[in-house]
Amino acid sequence: MEQESTTLALCRRAKAASAGLIGLGEDRVNEALLAMAEALMAHTAEILAANAEDLAAAEGVISTVMQDRLRLTEARIEGMAEGIRAIAALPSPVGEVLEEWERPNGLKIVKKRVPIGVLAIIYESRPNVTSDAAALSLKSGNACVLRIGKEAYRTARAIVTALKEGLNRAGVCEDAVGLVSDTTRQSANELMRAEGLVDLLIPRGGAGLIRACVENATVPCLETGTGICHVYVDKSADLDMALRILVNAKTSRPSVCNAAEVCLVHKDVAAEFLPMVKAALVDERAEHPVELRLCPRSAAVIEGRAATDKDFDTEFLDYVLALRVVDDVTEAVSHIAKHSTHHSEAIVATDGAAIDVFCTCVDSAAVYVNASTRFTDGGEFGFGCEMGISTQKLHARGPMGLKELTTYKYIVTGNGQIR
Amino acid sequence: MEQESTTLALCRRAKAASAGLIGLGEDRVNEALLAMAEALMAHTAEILAANAEDLAAAEGVISTVMQDRLRLTEARIEGMAEGIRAIAALPSPVGEVLEEWERPNGLKIVKKRVPIGVLAIIYESRPNVTSDAAALSLKSGNACVLRIGKEAYRTARAIVTALKEGLNRAGVCEDAVGLVSDTTRQSANELMRAEGLVDLLIPRGGAGLIRACVENATVPCLETGTGICHVYVDKSADLDMALRILVNAKTSRPSVCNAAEVCLVHKDVAAEFLPMVKAALVDERAEHPVELRLCPRSAAVIEGRAATDKDFDTEFLDYVLALRVVDDVTEAVSHIAKHSTHHSEAIVATDGAAIDVFCTCVDSAAVYVNASTRFTDGGEFGFGCEMGISTQKLHARGPMGLKELTTYKYIVTGNGQIR
Repeated sequence: MEQESTTLALCRRAKAASAGLIGLGEDRVNEALLAMAEALMAHTAEILAANAEDLAAAEGVISTVMQDRLRLTEARIEGMAEGIRAIAALPSPVGEVLEEWERPNGLKIVKKRVPIGVLAIIYESRPNVTSDAAALSLKSGNACVLRIGKEAYRTARAIVTALKEGLNRAGVCEDAVGLVSDTTRQSANELMRAEGLVDLLIPRGGAGLIRACVENATVPCLETGTGICHVYVDKSADLDMALRILVNAKTSRPSVCNAAEVCLVHKDVAAEFLPMVKAALVDERAEHPVELRLCPRSAAVIEGRAATDKDFDTEFLDYVLALRVVDDVTEAVSHIAKHSTHHSEAIVATDGAAIDVFCTCVDSAAVYVNASTRFTDGGEFGFGCEMGISTQKLHARGPMGLKELTTYKYIVTGNGQIR
Repeated sequence: MEQESTTLALCRRAKAASAGLIGLGEDRVNEALLAMAEALMAHTAEILAANAEDLAAAEGVISTVMQDRLRLTEARIEGMAEGIRAIAALPSPVGEVLEEWERPNGLKIVKKRVPIGVLAIIYESRPNVTSDAAALSLKSGNACVLRIGKEAYRTARAIVTALKEGLNRAGVCEDAVGLVSDTTRQSANELMRAEGLVDLLIPRGGAGLIRACVENATVPCLETGTGICHVYVDKSADLDMALRILVNAKTSRPSVCNAAEVCLVHKDVAAEFLPMVKAALVDERAEHPVELRLCPRSAAVIEGRAATDKDFDTEFLDYVLALRVVDDVTEAVSHIAKHSTHHSEAIVATDGAAIDVFCTCVDSAAVYVNASTRFTDGGEFGFGCEMGISTQKLHARGPMGLKELTTYKYIVTGNGQIR
């Protein structure tokens, strides 16, 4: 028999561990999570040392922004431990009876929430995802296989070593949290095709990674994150509110997926609103200047660089905003249908009819009325945590909390029924 | 610009039609469904003529079983129309508020059930799937693109022509139901990769088709159907009940996915139960003799062909049953974990502890206690209909009714909230 790769062997151990997690009980799971948090704190020195090695190797290799994402401090490790404790404090999703009914033939059907099994998470260089993903998986009754980018591997290994110590101390099989040691592309490809071992693949990272998973995965995969989010300013909008929402959606954190990339403006208010946008986002009063990309009708009102077609299909993740004047809410909806990634879109309006059209017709995970797109987030939704934001329609949409990491099964009880 | 294929053009029209289905209202949808049923009846002659052409071309090309599946009669067409009317009579799943809550900052979040968009269904030669799938899609607010095997294409075309007439008469865009005219492999491959046009791909058919979809699809895909289902007879079982359940699960319709393929017997009752199995399934009293494939311990009790390893991993879909003696419920659970396709498994037992272990640890869509695996079916579950039986864990598990053909979106209403 051919030798199995270390990655598949890890998945196989995770699969075995996942069977052991079933019926472990909420108290034991929470005990394990608290032990994981404690072990993380206890091993701060080792984790920082490993992080220093990663950082030294990364210098000149990855951007300073990426280096900053990779960098841990005592405070950040404490934050990670606090994150695990917060997850422990959430109610367990497992075992919930979702529905139950009895059939005329006497069969009793119970639809019960159960873990998915083994989650594989492929992510890039944020070390805190390691502990977050492990804690979310365990709390939802799943084993996990983590695969981090090579520039953060040493850090992740130190973190996972600590987490495993916590699991061991709580008497939970340490294979429930696994870290892939092969950081080449091969291991990612193996995870994408580990049928029977990986029950759900969650890629967290840039568009390239997500694309590779969608292209190559044969295991079920949850697409996350790409956000070309729109703010539509209706003619009925309170324009001051519209401006506050737009500025927040664009500039409060431009690098995240729920930031706005495109603003659509009703033609009747363009002459008034566009100069307000320019003053707030571009001119001296702007805290951080935003580059505007203007459609021809916007360019007739304010100055700025002309938008190319591509600008309306780009997730800038930067201080750049594409602007387009539309005839009405119907044109806004149809622009969004063509260009959105189905993540988050907002309408600013007071007209109930326009709001209805927008909410009914926009086919995105989250549709906002008079609020910023930045709220699409597990914490902001009140889930207490988040494994990513789904932009697909199957299984889960929008922020994925603990419930979204579960499935269900039917338990059907009879007294000899045959068909 | 390159000319788009007829298949992708069809998907694009379906996508446009799906936008029109949003907000159509339950009454209009039901009206369209009833008009579809009526048109189907009105065109019985044309449908039978097309079916006769398909049957003539199929003679000597496909098996007689397949020919029988393909054959329509007046009664069968009436049955299809009746099926559509039954779907019209079901409550609409669309628009249901699944959850709603308010955040401390005043944001109101509503989680609302919405259609998925465009469903692509690839199936083989059963003409009735054409009208079933179209009706289920429409009732759940989705447009559909149907792709039938070439041996049944003329029949499907006649059916879809009638269905479109019904849609037209009800004033619903006829592109909501599309039939792929290219019956080569290319069209199936195009559907698997029609990102942005196909929101969900549902393959209904043999293992080869499902395998091809899992391998090649980049659009979200719902795996259906393969069932290696187990019946475990515990030492605490009422053996007469166990025999009734086993005979039903194996022989009432061996060609379907919820039929049992493997029986696991507790060692303490093997000496008594196995001869009962042989008498009922093999010997003269058997209505239709079943071929047994015996593990060594079973072979020590009754006569029969020795099982190979492969026999425990085969969906026979025939009058064949693999038998294995196990030490206890734990060994049964672990055998099932290794060999099951996670479809349906049954335990026959009176011992509560054994039942608990089985129900908790068996990771299948449906787990039966003292009932036949044959009940895994939309109708038997009380869904009133079924688009197939999911054997994956993402999105939907087990019988997929109307709810399983929907997704949800969040509508978040504020009064200017920013983050």
